Amino acid sequence: MKLFIKDLAKDLLNGNTVALARAITLCESKKATDQKTASRLLQKIVPYSGKSIRIGITGSPGVGKSTFIEAFGKHLTSLGKKIAVLAIDPSSTKTRGSILGDRTRMEELSKDKLAFIRPTATGNSLGGVADKTRETILLCEAAGYEIIIVETVGVGQSETAVRNMVDFFLLLQLPGGGDELQGIKKGIMEMADGIVITKADGENEKRARQAQTEFQHALHLFQRSESGWQPVVLTTSALEKKGTKEVWAMIEKFYAHTIENGFYEKNRDEQNLKWFYESMDVLLKKKIFQSKKISSLIKSLEMKIRMGEIMPLQAAQKMVASIKK
Amino acid sequence: MKLFIKDLAKDLLNGNTVALARAITLCESKKATDQKTASRLLQKIVPYSGKSIRIGITGSPGVGKSTFIEAFGKHLTSLGKKIAVLAIDPSSTKTRGSILGDRTRMEELSKDKLAFIRPTATGNSLGGVADKTRETILLCEAAGYEIIIVETVGVGQSETAVRNMVDFFLLLQLPGGGDELQGIKKGIMEMADGIVITKADGENEKRARQAQTEFQHALHLFQRSESGWQPVVLTTSALEKKGTKEVWAMIEKFYAHTIENGFYEKNRDEQNLKWFYESMDVLLKKKIFQSKKISSLIKSLEMKIRMGEIMPLQAAQKMVASIKK
Repeated sequence: MKLFIKDLAKDLLNGNTVALARAITLCESKKATDQKTASRLLQKIVPYSGKSIRIGITGSPGVGKSTFIEAFGKHLTSLGKKIAVLAIDPSSTKTRGSILGDRTRMEELSKDKLAFIRPTATGNSLGGVADKTRETILLCEAAGYEIIIVETVGVGQSETAVRNMVDFFLLLQLPGGGDELQGIKKGIMEMADGIVITKADGENEKRARQAQTEFQHALHLFQRSESGWQPVVLTTSALEKKGTKEVWAMIEKFYAHTIENGFYEKNRDEQNLKWFYESMDVLLKKKIFQSKKISSLIKSLEMKIRMGEIMPLQAAQKMVASIKK
Repeated sequence: MKLFIKDLAKDLLNGNTVALARAITLCESKKATDQKTASRLLQKIVPYSGKSIRIGITGSPGVGKSTFIEAFGKHLTSLGKKIAVLAIDPSSTKTRGSILGDRTRMEELSKDKLAFIRPTATGNSLGGVADKTRETILLCEAAGYEIIIVETVGVGQSETAVRNMVDFFLLLQLPGGGDELQGIKKGIMEMADGIVITKADGENEKRARQAQTEFQHALHLFQRSESGWQPVVLTTSALEKKGTKEVWAMIEKFYAHTIENGFYEKNRDEQNLKWFYESMDVLLKKKIFQSKKISSLIKSLEMKIRMGEIMPLQAAQKMVASIKK
C-alpha cells in the first residue's frame, strides 16, 4: 500500500496524467479504504500544490461556456501554459442525471497535450462537491498545471462553493439579457471579479457593447470588494475569435494586483479555513449517526413526530440536549 | 409571561392579525428569551395548525410573480377563502440587502381583509429560513388561513427549501423562454406539480400556447413523481384576467387526488422529518461552538492551517475525533 502511494505520488508529480486521473478517482471514491489511501496521498503531494492561478467560471446554460473555455484554454496553451479544466456538475436532485452528461464539449482542448479536462458528476452534498473539487485542484497543481479552471453550471449553491475555492471568479453573460435577468444574477454579479459578454459578433455586437456599459455601470454601484480590485467587463466572440487574449490579460493584472496588496494569500488562507469548517460539518454528522444510542433516540423521536406527539423543532432540541459536551 | 402567551395564543386563534404578526415577529427574533416564548406559543397553537393547502410558487424575476399571486389571491378571496402569502427573500450574500425591498407589490391583495401578506427578509442560513417560514405557516394556519402561498424569488437553494414545506409546487414561466433556459430550470421543473405560462395575451398568446405544449411534452419525459400526479401546464393573462380560476381548479384536483391516495399525509410526515433533521443540524453546531474546550482546539487548528502545518480536511478529522461519543 505504502509503495503504491509512493509510486502514484511520484508519477503524479512527474505530470503523468494517468496517475493524476487515478488519484482523482481515488479521492472521489466513497470506499473507506480508498479514502484512507487518498488522504495519505494528499499529505504527500500537498507541499507541491498551491502554485497556480485558480479561475472559477460561471454562466447560465446557453451562454457559451464550453465554447469560451475552449477558446480561452487554447490561448493559454498557445502561451505554453499547462491548464486543467474541472467541471462541477451538480446533478438534478431527483433523477441524479448529469446535466452536462451527453454533450460533446471542448473537443479541441481535450486533444491538447497541455490541457487536462475532468468533468465531475456529483451527488447532493455541496460540502462534498467542494471537498472533492478542492482536493482535485491540489492534485492538478502537484501535477504541474499552472492554471486551474473550475466551471460551474450555475445550479443551486454551486457558484458560492466555487467562489470559495478560486482566486478569480468570472461571470459569462449574453449580450442584452434584459432587466428581468439582472435580479436573479445580482448575488452572482457581486461575486464576480470580471464579466465577459459572449457572442459579441455580427448583429449582437452593438447590444454586447451596450451590455458592457450597463454591467460596468452596475458594478460601480457595488461596494468594492476586499481585494481592492475593480471588476472589469469585457466582450468576446468565439465566432470571430476575439477577446480571449484580453480576458487573460485582465486575470494576470488581477493576479499581480492581489499578490502585491497581500489579498491573494489572505484569500487562500480564508478559503482553507472555510474548507476546515465544511469538513468538520460533514464528519460530525457521520460520527453522530454512527452512535447506536443516538441513532435509537433519533428513531424514537421520529416515531413521535409521525404520531404528532412532538414538534420537529422540539424533537431536535431534545436530541441535541442528549449529547454530552 | 405565561399570561402573555395565553393571551397571544387566544387572539391568534381568533384570527386577530395583529396577534399573528406579533407571533411571527417573535419566532423570527434572535433573542434567546423570545425564542423560548415562541417555542411555548408554538406548542400551544400546533394542535390547531395543519389544516390548509400549502402552495409554493417560484419563477425568475420578471415572470410576473407578484401580478399572478395578486390575481390568484383575489380569486381565492372572492370564493371566501382566507389566504396568507409568505414571501421568502434570501438576501444577496454580500450586502444583505433585500431584493424585493422597495417594490410595491400586490397592492390590491394587501388591502383585502381575507388576505394576510408577510414578506420575510432573511439572512444567510437556509436552514434558518426554512425553520422560520415553517413556523410562520403553522401560525397562519392556527389563525384560520386556509390557503398558504409561499413565494420564493428563486435564488440559491430557496426553491428546494420551499418545495420541502408545501403540498403543491407551482412554477411560473414566460412564454417562449428559449432552449437556453431549459437547462437551468430542469431541476426545478422536476419539482413542479404545475407550470403556469404567464403573460399569455396579445402577441404572446401563440408563443404561450407553444410553450404550453413544449413544457407538457417535457414533463412527460420525467419520471412520474411519488404522488402519482401528472403535472399540468396552464396559461394565464393578468392583462386579460384569464386563467387563475383554472389554476385553482388544478390545485383542488391535486389535493383531492393526493388525499385519496394517501400521498398528502405521507408527504407532510416526511417534511416534518426533514424539519427535524435540519433543526438538529443548526442546534448541534450552536452547541459545539459553545464548549470552551472545543473552541480552543478549533482555534489552535485554525492557526496550524494558516501556517500550512496541517490540511483543512485532516484538521477537521482531528477535531471531530476529539468529541466524545
